[in-house]
Amino acid sequence: MKPLIGVDWGTSSLRVARIDSAGHAIEERSSQRGILTVETGQFPSVLEAACGDWLAQDPLVLVCGMAGSRQGWVEAAYAPCPAGFDDIASHLAWVEPGRVAIVPGLSCERDGVPDVMRGEETQVFGALELLSTGSATLVLPGTHSKWVHARDGRIMDFSTFMTGEIYALLRHQSILARTMPPQDDDTLDEAALRTGIEQAMQSGSLLSAAFSARTLALFDRLPAKAAASYLSGLVIGEELRSQKLDRSQEVIVVAQAQLAKRYALALQGLGVASRCVGSEASWRGLSAIARRIGENA
Amino acid sequence: MKPLIGVDWGTSSLRVARIDSAGHAIEERSSQRGILTVETGQFPSVLEAACGDWLAQDPLVLVCGMAGSRQGWVEAAYAPCPAGFDDIASHLAWVEPGRVAIVPGLSCERDGVPDVMRGEETQVFGALELLSTGSATLVLPGTHSKWVHARDGRIMDFSTFMTGEIYALLRHQSILARTMPPQDDDTLDEAALRTGIEQAMQSGSLLSAAFSARTLALFDRLPAKAAASYLSGLVIGEELRSQKLDRSQEVIVVAQAQLAKRYALALQGLGVASRCVGSEASWRGLSAIARRIGENA
Repeated sequence: MKPLIGVDWGTSSLRVARIDSAGHAIEERSSQRGILTVETGQFPSVLEAACGDWLAQDPLVLVCGMAGSRQGWVEAAYAPCPAGFDDIASHLAWVEPGRVAIVPGLSCERDGVPDVMRGEETQVFGALELLSTGSATLVLPGTHSKWVHARDGRIMDFSTFMTGEIYALLRHQSILARTMPPQDDDTLDEAALRTGIEQAMQSGSLLSAAFSARTLALFDRLPAKAAASYLSGLVIGEELRSQKLDRSQEVIVVAQAQLAKRYALALQGLGVASRCVGSEASWRGLSAIARRIGENA
Repeated sequence: MKPLIGVDWGTSSLRVARIDSAGHAIEERSSQRGILTVETGQFPSVLEAACGDWLAQDPLVLVCGMAGSRQGWVEAAYAPCPAGFDDIASHLAWVEPGRVAIVPGLSCERDGVPDVMRGEETQVFGALELLSTGSATLVLPGTHSKWVHARDGRIMDFSTFMTGEIYALLRHQSILARTMPPQDDDTLDEAALRTGIEQAMQSGSLLSAAFSARTLALFDRLPAKAAASYLSGLVIGEELRSQKLDRSQEVIVVAQAQLAKRYALALQGLGVASRCVGSEASWRGLSAIARRIGENA
């Protein structure tokens, strides 16, 4: 097999890694050259700038993330759910046959409404491999959190929550920002996070619960430096409330450590077990896809 | 009784009216001199500029709205719910005894969380008078919508929804803005509004439902010019979903005509009857308070 270079090319960042045959990153680099900063036709040269030294070794390059969107390098049509590793591997959009391919995102449909992901499918498959399981409920928190149901190695369906984006809007642009410190120095206050989660669980809607961040501050019951953690609890709690979580279940949290910790605390508060997987999930997922390509070749 | 001047002094606007003894506005003026534009100590001169000719006739001036907040003219402490006309009248903050008074806002507490309103209490009392009823469920839609329960002429409790503010953030600042026309030329598309409301009713959370405005656009199932109405339906629907509305109930919508129409359509879709009251509610409310002062004097 050729050496493998993994590329996680998102909206606002570009991460590249040399990946060994076991799916571990040997070397990793990242930059702010997300697809929004790259003009049409410039994707090859931006990748060359990021890891030209690696590309010289004639590797297989697998790209996941928004680079496969209409505004990206080459559009990779969504593969419909249910979808497994093999479906992904057979839907690759080859930029250079045998050398550079883009992993397709997934789509699903629920109650007449479509949903989409790009990049998270690779993390999910990687996380399942890392945990040696084929069936799990996973959450990939972020700007647009994804809740994913996998069974027998296939992603059955998923749903998107605009949790991170709405948090940021409320934190920085709404009336709630007026009673919070101006900087984004939002050290986690665990007690405030828990209070926010509890408040969200007993509230009927974030539209209403969010206002409590203001009134609690007005009545001196929420210190300014705890307010962002409380708000974080409100939005994470709202996301969890709308899942139908069973205490016998386990949720796999795929996220970097700080964000994963917030979700782990939230799930713990509901009596739901969780395990966390970090950024290694993407590399492991790309490695598993590369292996499938090798088997089919 | 002295002639009455009503002042509705909000965060971003100032409205003044000469009010007759039946509670009708004889003459109305408005400007953008909301309290955020007024420096401490400058409230009398800004009011003088707005209606000095009326003030020359030695009227009673009653002021409702954010002018009674800590950042306003004179702070009028919140009156706690349940509260009726008499409670409001006995909690007035007099700027000049017998001449200029500020109507206090209301506070209530629910599940350990305080809630507040300033200005809406006057509209509610005015609407109840206009409709000759003392008991009703009312909604005052806006940046921060208020749902109010009144019984026997008293406001029993209420809750705030950040519907208008979150709509504006999603409409203009979020990823959803990318698939909508840039201008704020959001002509109501009734069908899209209804679809949004239905989607919200069957969704568990706005965090998730909001993303459908993006995916429906991506899959060419939501025309760009209908997207803002759809989003409006999503947030109004979310607000209604978290009410426990009974089809035998009637909801009083207190709002200007365009916004009232959206709520009336939404309520109609749920089989809930509604009646609408406009800006005359504030003047009628201030008139009722003036009458109480007269009776107590």
